[in-house]
Amino acid sequence: MEYASDLKLVSRHAKAEDTVVRVGDIAVGGPDPVVMAGPCSVESHQQTLETAERVQRAGAVMLRGGAYKPRTSPYSFQGLGAEGLRILESVRDSTGLPVISEVLDVITFDDVGAAVDVIQIGARSMQNVSLLRRAGASTKPVLLKRWMSATLEEFLFAAEYILAEGNPNVILCERGIRTFNDYTRFTLDLAIVPELKRLSHLPVVVDPSHAAGRRELVLPLARAAIAAGADGILVEVHPEPDEALSDGRQALTFDMFDELMATITHFVPVDRTGSTISA
Amino acid sequence: MEYASDLKLVSRHAKAEDTVVRVGDIAVGGPDPVVMAGPCSVESHQQTLETAERVQRAGAVMLRGGAYKPRTSPYSFQGLGAEGLRILESVRDSTGLPVISEVLDVITFDDVGAAVDVIQIGARSMQNVSLLRRAGASTKPVLLKRWMSATLEEFLFAAEYILAEGNPNVILCERGIRTFNDYTRFTLDLAIVPELKRLSHLPVVVDPSHAAGRRELVLPLARAAIAAGADGILVEVHPEPDEALSDGRQALTFDMFDELMATITHFVPVDRTGSTISA
Amino acid sequence: MEYASDLKLVSRHAKAEDTVVRVGDIAVGGPDPVVMAGPCSVESHQQTLETAERVQRAGAVMLRGGAYKPRTSPYSFQGLGAEGLRILESVRDSTGLPVISEVLDVITFDDVGAAVDVIQIGARSMQNVSLLRRAGASTKPVLLKRWMSATLEEFLFAAEYILAEGNPNVILCERGIRTFNDYTRFTLDLAIVPELKRLSHLPVVVDPSHAAGRRELVLPLARAAIAAGADGILVEVHPEPDEALSDGRQALTFDMFDELMATITHFVPVDRTGSTISA
Amino acid sequence: MEYASDLKLVSRHAKAEDTVVRVGDIAVGGPDPVVMAGPCSVESHQQTLETAERVQRAGAVMLRGGAYKPRTSPYSFQGLGAEGLRILESVRDSTGLPVISEVLDVITFDDVGAAVDVIQIGARSMQNVSLLRRAGASTKPVLLKRWMSATLEEFLFAAEYILAEGNPNVILCERGIRTFNDYTRFTLDLAIVPELKRLSHLPVVVDPSHAAGRRELVLPLARAAIAAGADGILVEVHPEPDEALSDGRQALTFDMFDELMATITHFVPVDRTGSTISA
Repeated sequence: MEYASDLKLVSRHAKAEDTVVRVGDIAVGGPDPVVMAGPCSVESHQQTLETAERVQRAGAVMLRGGAYKPRTSPYSFQGLGAEGLRILESVRDSTGLPVISEVLDVITFDDVGAAVDVIQIGARSMQNVSLLRRAGASTKPVLLKRWMSATLEEFLFAAEYILAEGNPNVILCERGIRTFNDYTRFTLDLAIVPELKRLSHLPVVVDPSHAAGRRELVLPLARAAIAAGADGILVEVHPEPDEALSDGRQALTFDMFDELMATITHFVPVDRTGSTISA
Repeated sequence: MEYASDLKLVSRHAKAEDTVVRVGDIAVGGPDPVVMAGPCSVESHQQTLETAERVQRAGAVMLRGGAYKPRTSPYSFQGLGAEGLRILESVRDSTGLPVISEVLDVITFDDVGAAVDVIQIGARSMQNVSLLRRAGASTKPVLLKRWMSATLEEFLFAAEYILAEGNPNVILCERGIRTFNDYTRFTLDLAIVPELKRLSHLPVVVDPSHAAGRRELVLPLARAAIAAGADGILVEVHPEPDEALSDGRQALTFDMFDELMATITHFVPVDRTGSTISA
Repeated sequence: MEYASDLKLVSRHAKAEDTVVRVGDIAVGGPDPVVMAGPCSVESHQQTLETAERVQRAGAVMLRGGAYKPRTSPYSFQGLGAEGLRILESVRDSTGLPVISEVLDVITFDDVGAAVDVIQIGARSMQNVSLLRRAGASTKPVLLKRWMSATLEEFLFAAEYILAEGNPNVILCERGIRTFNDYTRFTLDLAIVPELKRLSHLPVVVDPSHAAGRRELVLPLARAAIAAGADGILVEVHPEPDEALSDGRQALTFDMFDELMATITHFVPVDRTGSTISA
Repeated sequence: MEYASDLKLVSRHAKAEDTVVRVGDIAVGGPDPVVMAGPCSVESHQQTLETAERVQRAGAVMLRGGAYKPRTSPYSFQGLGAEGLRILESVRDSTGLPVISEVLDVITFDDVGAAVDVIQIGARSMQNVSLLRRAGASTKPVLLKRWMSATLEEFLFAAEYILAEGNPNVILCERGIRTFNDYTRFTLDLAIVPELKRLSHLPVVVDPSHAAGRRELVLPLARAAIAAGADGILVEVHPEPDEALSDGRQALTFDMFDELMATITHFVPVDRTGSTISA
């Protein structure tokens, strides 16, 4: 497809070589795909530390965990908020793992931005223009998730809002789109990985956990994402998934995560470089 | 369908009789459907006043107009902002028409809230929890648009966030969902009108302009919405649609709006009361 | 939208005036919308006759009933087949109501074609090219249903197959498309009514029963379809819906059908003629 | 998900071990994924033979080619029909490659069935009950494509129709579903591969060509399909894609196919057996 001519900064016309987003000594968009893992929600220091140590041992290089949770129902657990951020900071100090967590609004942006290494803008916020602009004024890397019914162009335009404000460190994340399918929570759209990399220089990662909504499908989808050329994956892991305060159905057990990590490198394209896929 | 048991305040179990949202002496959710019309964007005092006077003469009871516009591209016209609010206030003073306009974030909430009679939360903000909570703490009526891929339950939960904070004056608005259809911008889901009225006591209006994306389809869809039991319609009208700074393709000309108003009352169900449709 | 230039016979470029399909002394596509009603499946002579007499008394002008049923499961009731056709013929003799029934394949085409007044090609057969060609070689009127994920263009091309073989008597029928919606069986796409009538001269009817999948939504959707300019509606009615061998959940009771017929004419556009809606 | 209890023969409850469909000495559903390749349409003996020899040299084990083509427009190339079948037979004789081709209706079923090694039932025919029953009465292996808006359950029920008639040799094929995406022709739903293999014992292959609709996306999607656990892929290849009489946009050039084959085995799960993925 030919994309909107007014897509400027995110396009390969503006920058031919791949953008590599550096988080400490981790390179997102470099030759090696990265694995970011952790619980959907930060529930306690113990749960977060235990998960962080285990995923780190298995090979994860970044810890994910939600402190501010956007929930469908006002009566569902909304996250620990500031306390969750403190837990993430403490666990990073113990493990050395950089942390990524979602920011919900401009009000709490500074608190979240100060606490984390990568700011996540969730799918439901992908077209929250004020939040995109605020993230663009930050110097922290931003992981931008695709809204579950965003077209490829709308997704790139959301990233354009961030770059236009001066922050070039954006990681795009496919997490499934809404379709008529009823056996998964969303439908993972892997074709967007090579297409985004063809049109844009930004790194692209995939979240198979939210797409599948069921842990037994996460492993094959994670393998497929890497095989399709993704620069990394974002996976939910929990010590006791069935006890999780949110999305337990899709969280991997520690053993399943070990199995994933033991096999995932097998699926890295031999000819991989961020842009080899573009035709 | 049986809906989530934790939907509380918005459900007919909590309140059996229809909620009537009063805006000045207008009753949204009462026996007569209401027509809210105006330009997509407030572009100038002249354009706004001219449109307001013309739609008022034709029978519209509320003026719609965007001051803060959420746009896909950062390079598109973003609205006149505060200046647009001043224009809306001035046109209300001249015409006596209450005004409705969209609020994009918590930062500008107070300014927009102080200026308008009905606060619009746009489709893209339907799951912006911070904004929903802020609107719930307000005393102004809120028109909540359905996000283009929200399920019926997600839509009602978004309204629940507002009621849960103490503001009972919520108007639900269907504006089309995203499907594979390629001949309209979105697909208008009219079945949700009777279903929402069956499950909830809140008034339901329909925006055929954004759904169709093309003015020649707005009139039949507006008639269909009223026939399906909608409590009102929200329609875009512009003095010179082809010169509009946004969404001109879907704006009605003054003559088309006159034709709509001349015929719309014909489609009001004879047995209409907010809840007759519920089975 | 500009439609495919190789759409020939179905387009208004080929024929500007509306096509009126005559079935006995009924005119589909004329000034008055027509109501076709009956059970999903012909289950017995008694059930079919009782339903036919009741819907006729209420104002229906054509009897619908399935003899050959396309079912998702091979273990579901597949219809009475030839016996069902005999029942339809007998009930037509008693009531004088023309009958419409679905044909599933070229093998049974002649039997169905000889028995009914209007041949229905179901949604699942909309792109069954052999069946479309066979129907094109027939002299009987054909009601062609839109496949639940057909684009507007694919729908018109399916009709083009029939006209290209020499049969001009095609009635287009919208019956809902597949979307992410989970509170209805399908999503009724009413915008296609005015759009089809703008692009084509063929009459357009709507089936609100299959779209809704729930009887309590059929009445408002039927009203909306007529208000949007449909040339008629196709509605499922059953003496005891909860005892129906197929789709009972969406069948109207006799009393609900009476209510529908008592109010439906109220929604006929005053300025109605098949083509007024085209812009 | 728990699937319909009346899914019988296709389920793992009926047969725990994987079904391996044998085509000559090829095993579909065995330890090694199979690659079926060839032109969308058989256009000439020369084009078909040249393509067959080239894909065979690269490692394909089966030749695909359409003789009877289901086309959206009656004015598009409809395939060479019987002449196309003769070409496929001749090329099989020269190369030894078994051939797979689509059957459109019960009328031509015997001719197609006699000529090919695997009968393909296309997506648009997935719910053509008469055709499914006829295929069930055959002894030839059947490749059943998923209709672009079939739910997982509808897909398995279509296969159930075939098994219920006595033919156990069914290969399921995912080829993309219809969504709002506008940068690909369809959206490839890879999660269905592990889910089908968990619920059913039938082999599952993937057609990345029709899903993508653009050749530059076929290679990454083919790799992803294999990584997700598919038992094989079905790929379109053409000597001169831009001269193809159908779907040239998505056909691989010979060189692209060589690149695909040179790398595809890299993505076969090390722990692969048809059922390892089931949780």
